[in-house]
Amino acid sequence: MNYPNGIKKDNINKNITYKNRGMNLENDLNITNNYYIENNIAFIYKKPTPIQVVKASYNESGNRVIKEAYYKEPSTTDYNGIYKGYYIDFEAKETKNKQGFPLNNIHPHQIKHLRNILSQQGICFLIIRFTSLNETYLIKADDFIFFIDNKKKSIMGLDYIKEKGYIIKEKLLKRLDYLEIVDKIWRLL
Amino acid sequence: MNYPNGIKKDNINKNITYKNRGMNLENDLNITNNYYIENNIAFIYKKPTPIQVVKASYNESGNRVIKEAYYKEPSTTDYNGIYKGYYIDFEAKETKNKQGFPLNNIHPHQIKHLRNILSQQGICFLIIRFTSLNETYLIKADDFIFFIDNKKKSIMGLDYIKEKGYIIKEKLLKRLDYLEIVDKIWRLL
Repeated sequence: MNYPNGIKKDNINKNITYKNRGMNLENDLNITNNYYIENNIAFIYKKPTPIQVVKASYNESGNRVIKEAYYKEPSTTDYNGIYKGYYIDFEAKETKNKQGFPLNNIHPHQIKHLRNILSQQGICFLIIRFTSLNETYLIKADDFIFFIDNKKKSIMGLDYIKEKGYIIKEKLLKRLDYLEIVDKIWRLL
Repeated sequence: MNYPNGIKKDNINKNITYKNRGMNLENDLNITNNYYIENNIAFIYKKPTPIQVVKASYNESGNRVIKEAYYKEPSTTDYNGIYKGYYIDFEAKETKNKQGFPLNNIHPHQIKHLRNILSQQGICFLIIRFTSLNETYLIKADDFIFFIDNKKKSIMGLDYIKEKGYIIKEKLLKRLDYLEIVDKIWRLL
């Protein structure tokens, strides 16, 4: 097979892989959280996706094998943990939308959870990536909740997110160093 | 079929069900945590068990069905959340052993996690139920870690747990009201 400009197939594949990796918010947050963990900065983990097991059995090695299971709707946010002694809780979402963040991306259970965590003075926020703009924002949960309670809209506009939120710049090791922004907002320095 | 003392079969079954339910630590903690959540006391959840999905497909309704998956070893403790603004983190284990708590019940990853949370001043402990004694104890993570680091034993003896730990009495609504003990130990009143 021939490729334009004499580019070898290997190089094309490498580029594609790297680009996809950079585009995936969950993967970026994994890299970031692992950096935090390995350097004893914070211990924040993504919760496993809850599943409903319907059928399971044991295989020849005596290990349990799940044969039929379904994904369940999570009742909390995906990420939580501890940083400088503080409770940290957030949800991370990607959207292809260029106008803003469609609110149906967050389940009612999760909105209730954000309210609960705020009522306990937890450090609580959303990380939203606009994949088509290649921009990632952190917005405090109280600004998000304020929008839901006061604006009767199905999309949280990019203008509101730019006004209230903070852009997270990509770095090499701490891929998405969101705790730098947490330090500033909550004055944890 | 005849039962002694004129007891009907239905009643026997009810008793067995109730007894089994009372014996299950995870279920008791679910009831307790739900009570805390519904009364806005604390927001503490059990993390879903992590699984490795090998095969998945879509069914006729367009839902994703997991066709082959395996349980993975958890890298953190099972429970975490927030209480009075503090980060709470614990592991809950049952043992049939009457002499003490066999240390191989806790994975090395989980011990590392307990050390990490302690380094961040998180409120961190174990809840251990001795099913054959029908007793449940809370022991602080630092007393557990001290035992691991200083005693060269494979079982944490019941005498040590009774000396350092706190018995959790069963209640009706707040089935296992462990936060009452957390209040006392960490002086959160």
